[in-house]
Amino acid sequence: MITIAVDAMGGDHAPRAEVEGAVAAARDYGVRVRLVGLDSVVRNELARHPHRGLPIEVVHASEVITMTDLPSQAFRKKKDSSVHVALRLMRKGEADALVSAGNTGAVMATARFMLGTLPSVDRPALAAPFPTSKGGVAVLIDVGANVDSKPEHLEQFAIMGEIYYRTIFGMRRPRVALLSIGEEESKGNEVTREAFARLKQTPLNFVGNVEGRDVFSGHVQVIVCDGFIGNVALKISEGLVEHLVQVLKDALKATIASQVGYVLSRRAYQDFKKKVDYSEYGGAPLLGVRGTTIICHGRSNANAIKNAIRVAAELVRTRANVRIEQELAEVQAAHRA
Amino acid sequence: MITIAVDAMGGDHAPRAEVEGAVAAARDYGVRVRLVGLDSVVRNELARHPHRGLPIEVVHASEVITMTDLPSQAFRKKKDSSVHVALRLMRKGEADALVSAGNTGAVMATARFMLGTLPSVDRPALAAPFPTSKGGVAVLIDVGANVDSKPEHLEQFAIMGEIYYRTIFGMRRPRVALLSIGEEESKGNEVTREAFARLKQTPLNFVGNVEGRDVFSGHVQVIVCDGFIGNVALKISEGLVEHLVQVLKDALKATIASQVGYVLSRRAYQDFKKKVDYSEYGGAPLLGVRGTTIICHGRSNANAIKNAIRVAAELVRTRANVRIEQELAEVQAAHRA
Repeated sequence: MITIAVDAMGGDHAPRAEVEGAVAAARDYGVRVRLVGLDSVVRNELARHPHRGLPIEVVHASEVITMTDLPSQAFRKKKDSSVHVALRLMRKGEADALVSAGNTGAVMATARFMLGTLPSVDRPALAAPFPTSKGGVAVLIDVGANVDSKPEHLEQFAIMGEIYYRTIFGMRRPRVALLSIGEEESKGNEVTREAFARLKQTPLNFVGNVEGRDVFSGHVQVIVCDGFIGNVALKISEGLVEHLVQVLKDALKATIASQVGYVLSRRAYQDFKKKVDYSEYGGAPLLGVRGTTIICHGRSNANAIKNAIRVAAELVRTRANVRIEQELAEVQAAHRA
Repeated sequence: MITIAVDAMGGDHAPRAEVEGAVAAARDYGVRVRLVGLDSVVRNELARHPHRGLPIEVVHASEVITMTDLPSQAFRKKKDSSVHVALRLMRKGEADALVSAGNTGAVMATARFMLGTLPSVDRPALAAPFPTSKGGVAVLIDVGANVDSKPEHLEQFAIMGEIYYRTIFGMRRPRVALLSIGEEESKGNEVTREAFARLKQTPLNFVGNVEGRDVFSGHVQVIVCDGFIGNVALKISEGLVEHLVQVLKDALKATIASQVGYVLSRRAYQDFKKKVDYSEYGGAPLLGVRGTTIICHGRSNANAIKNAIRVAAELVRTRANVRIEQELAEVQAAHRA
């Protein structure tokens, strides 16, 4: 039985969302869940959810990483944090994957350090799925694990992202693109131009450059970029969604007619909010580490945690890391030849 | 009288939007406008708008740059395009500024080549204003004139962007920030970390790093980044706004109740659309060239063109370029000392 370690202390709604999501996943997906965190706190929460007979356990961790901890300090100084304990379970073979909605920087740093990277991977990368206008999902990789990526790193991100996409979203030949500032091969910066030349030679379904406005169009499925750019893109999108929802709310409150209109179309707003809520897509995997690690948004609700557990189990079951290592080794052999 | 050359053939709605905006600007702002484009086409359009006694003229240009022209080819091969003719008017002293809603790449390349850069500027930069949650405006600089910017270029962008902000949006000490992936000075990539150290030493009101999500918050007014990142940020924002408007429309059409609700709150949607419409903010100045050049969105309507003419006239009237040259020379002298 696949076993997922869930960082019960991570998110803004921890341990409530984590425990509720874990119970639902254990019930619906046939996975074992080890909830890692302050024993009494997690047990209290667990007692609120019927879970008799479900494969759920609590594993104690005496320390908690907060959002204000600096990543580098958290991973060096809080060695009994829920993240550390969960990763130690993975190293001992007592868990197959980690799901955490904690401090992204701290989880990434600790996972990289404690699990190490796959032999053919230079740098792990964070892959963020988000909804598109066509109703499907696109994945942006990297959204913040790296800065100053080199062309060969972008090539690795593309290969890892494509395998993740195939595995989780079930498309056989997802379209892979490079995020740039113009469609022609000559457009972009030094790094993307060289990455373009490399990607053309891979077995991927590489369709060339896309611009920022194509990210949400649904025309491409895997979009590759340096982590500085991907992080700015992701955070701008989050900020803009909040901004637009606020502007719309204010406009709807402005007159009596629009208030009545709002009440009548409330369901439409709820649908709207749900569709622009990134949390439903199962978190962002940190690809390229030895072991499966899914990082969820701090604001994740129980459903987001449940989905992330499903994604983690699926990546383990399909041996995604073995395939990543294999495909990367092949591409690197082709470069040498 | 300040004279603005308007590229009458540039935008998606050319020459309609250009001519209507020019007539309104000549009437309301006391500026002279020279409409540059295919003589017969522009005159026909101008005849539709009452303009007797207004300082408006048509200047013939036999060629038109299209959106599919490559920038480098357009500026070398279409030497009698409306952009070339307008820039030649500037060189002869027959116009003080150019406003164009044409092919951004072609306008930038042609303006850089034909006007040259200010002595203390290494690279001109495009500054894009956009609305924030607080109701004000923030300016992102650079949004696509440069890639692979060095720290000293980002410093120049900051100084140019701040002078533009003070001039046009009337704030005495706008807050200047660096777009990065974390607030601490140590966060970012090689270029932003070095730019951070430089910006601290300028006389600017530099407040440090901001993340993508702060771009729309209204906490900072001038946000500095490399043009690759700024272009991705801008295009992602445009794509996301379109995506969200579509999702909302679909949701509102889904049930009878929400359709009735929509009718009642239609004014609210119109307000919403207007507030997220970037075209109202007067176009994006290409700062650092010898001469004032404003580039508008291809979709600009007459109001956007009118606003861009106002901004161009204001930058000319206040001698913004003289102040840019002066402040940059001072900062560079301080670096040498």
